[in-house]
Amino acid sequence: MTTRTERDQAAIPGSRPPAGDPDTPRTAGGRSMDGHAERRPVPAGSENPEAADVLERTRALVDPELRRAVDSLPGSMRRVARHHFGWEQADGTPAAGDAGKAIRPALVLTAVRALGGRRTDAVRAAAAVELVHNFTLLHDDVMDRDTTRRHRPTAWTVFGEADAILAGDALQALAQQLLAEDPHPASAAAAARLAGCVVELCAGQHTDTAMEKLGPGEVTLDECLAMAEAKTGALIGCACALGGLYAGADARDVDALDAFGREAGLAFQLIDDVIGIWGDPGRTGKPAGADLVARKKSLPVVAALTSDSPAAGDLARLYGSPYREGDLERTVLAVERAGGRDWAQAEAADRMARAMHELSRAVPDPEAAGGLLALAEFVTRRSS
Amino acid sequence: MTTRTERDQAAIPGSRPPAGDPDTPRTAGGRSMDGHAERRPVPAGSENPEAADVLERTRALVDPELRRAVDSLPGSMRRVARHHFGWEQADGTPAAGDAGKAIRPALVLTAVRALGGRRTDAVRAAAAVELVHNFTLLHDDVMDRDTTRRHRPTAWTVFGEADAILAGDALQALAQQLLAEDPHPASAAAAARLAGCVVELCAGQHTDTAMEKLGPGEVTLDECLAMAEAKTGALIGCACALGGLYAGADARDVDALDAFGREAGLAFQLIDDVIGIWGDPGRTGKPAGADLVARKKSLPVVAALTSDSPAAGDLARLYGSPYREGDLERTVLAVERAGGRDWAQAEAADRMARAMHELSRAVPDPEAAGGLLALAEFVTRRSS
Repeated sequence: MTTRTERDQAAIPGSRPPAGDPDTPRTAGGRSMDGHAERRPVPAGSENPEAADVLERTRALVDPELRRAVDSLPGSMRRVARHHFGWEQADGTPAAGDAGKAIRPALVLTAVRALGGRRTDAVRAAAAVELVHNFTLLHDDVMDRDTTRRHRPTAWTVFGEADAILAGDALQALAQQLLAEDPHPASAAAAARLAGCVVELCAGQHTDTAMEKLGPGEVTLDECLAMAEAKTGALIGCACALGGLYAGADARDVDALDAFGREAGLAFQLIDDVIGIWGDPGRTGKPAGADLVARKKSLPVVAALTSDSPAAGDLARLYGSPYREGDLERTVLAVERAGGRDWAQAEAADRMARAMHELSRAVPDPEAAGGLLALAEFVTRRSS
Repeated sequence: MTTRTERDQAAIPGSRPPAGDPDTPRTAGGRSMDGHAERRPVPAGSENPEAADVLERTRALVDPELRRAVDSLPGSMRRVARHHFGWEQADGTPAAGDAGKAIRPALVLTAVRALGGRRTDAVRAAAAVELVHNFTLLHDDVMDRDTTRRHRPTAWTVFGEADAILAGDALQALAQQLLAEDPHPASAAAAARLAGCVVELCAGQHTDTAMEKLGPGEVTLDECLAMAEAKTGALIGCACALGGLYAGADARDVDALDAFGREAGLAFQLIDDVIGIWGDPGRTGKPAGADLVARKKSLPVVAALTSDSPAAGDLARLYGSPYREGDLERTVLAVERAGGRDWAQAEAADRMARAMHELSRAVPDPEAAGGLLALAEFVTRRSS
């Protein structure tokens, strides 16, 4: 249904060949996170060796810290968390599941290095960010009633809603415990920043669920972008900022790193939303347009709905009533004709340009910035 | 149904006249928290002027910090939190609701003073403990499907489950943010201790919900006591320990303060469970024995069930099937005849004795210990 050429267009113009499957972020745009969960993993780094190298080194440094933290939990919550991370089956037997690519810890460690600090100093901070990410995933799955993540049943479907909520609560606590026990001089500032980020993530998730209940004409594009920034951009920005803090960077550079991560995160979200509509089901593992069928208000859809074009009216009518068999092609066409796809791709390119600008402010030396750049490209240049 | 004499027996032998309605803690023993919510407030301090004075001064010091923190939340979660604290109606109009008695913040400030520190130094820590307490209440109400708290509808019944979960998540984050931004030298140790306590609270709530699904013969008294300690004692102990940390006390004294709070918290829970069965419905605001009707495994019930007496068999048979009209009197009698009430009162007295012993270790001067003692008595010497 979707050609290779079309898929490539989903990437930012002038992109490198597409990279592997990125980590599963807290996606925005009202989209189910199953999309990520169901995408088939492509060997990391087959097309972005620098990012692959960074991710592999991150896993080697951060995984032991992460496992130590999770294994410190009392039995009940340890089981839920280990299952969620893909380390254990529901019955407690070991699993070699997909714990995600650890993009956020990699950003922490790469940012600390880019600012002249030592990766090994920031391992607890990197693990803390990953714990926060996974706490939000556990809770989002409960709220969104998502049933699969990373190719496995979500925690609440296996252990019940209460235990999934409790395991999430405990992971947030573990993240803060790691930072509170970290003797590094930046740990308190990092803890405060991470806590502030959690509040923003929660606000983003609130807006997302609230927007899903509104009619097609009741959401503005600015609201949708702000929600995506809070839900997806904030933690990616925070990861970069923590790296800056642990390198002893000044406040201006830390804020620039945060902005870099936010913009790159938003670029990722835009590309992800485009793929959700025009992606290749053979690679994404779910039917193209599943989000349209579910009448999700992803960024290209809201851009199309608010475009003041005849096709916007068609789309609003389609979105105004539940999906009917055979509507998909018309819906895809309406989004496209109303400019949703072009807008999303241009906006993604614009966001990446802004990200690059922020990065050059914090890390003027292109060589030092190389790792962060590679990660940003890894996250955004996807074709599936 | 219950005479005044009987009610007084619910207090620890040799008690002072009963004090006012205590704060609403995360109750254990598998009991609904509605019991607390529904109890009619008795003017604090009408019978314990020292505790009343401490609580009033705590409110004056901590409330501004607490309100500042909550008001820093984005609109959606601020609304949920302000409603939960009783400051606002569901429609956003002001309310003069019951935000609880702030026993835990009072313990932080009283402990810091008892160890020679300044109350004003520990205000953020006191607010952080109260935020954690309220985060757990918000989440517990979702998990337990409790519909009233502090005489008002619970947050999830008003704002939906998702927003109640998110507001709870945000309150936990705010608590850690307060400590991370606190320049006091003890703030990092306090943050680590509070985070560890959250994990324990979650484990306690998990065990509580798990125990409710077990049959009457499947829960041991030790398991029930351990659950109550995790769910109710841990945060009361942590509050006292944080006071010690902020006073610069040594590790041994901090641990003794923690143990004092835990034992006093457990004594409170035992008394609360006794009141739940033999309390005066005119004062508790709910029918005596509602927990028995709901077949809750409170501490006196589990003590009775595991007592190896003929009445234990009667109680197990009653608990083995759903409540039938008219069973209540037989159930109350079975718990009593199997020694559940006597055991709970003796155990509460024993726990209070242990609490006093721990307190005397941390604060040998009886005058300095007076405030903590008054609070412990306020919490445990209740008649309603």
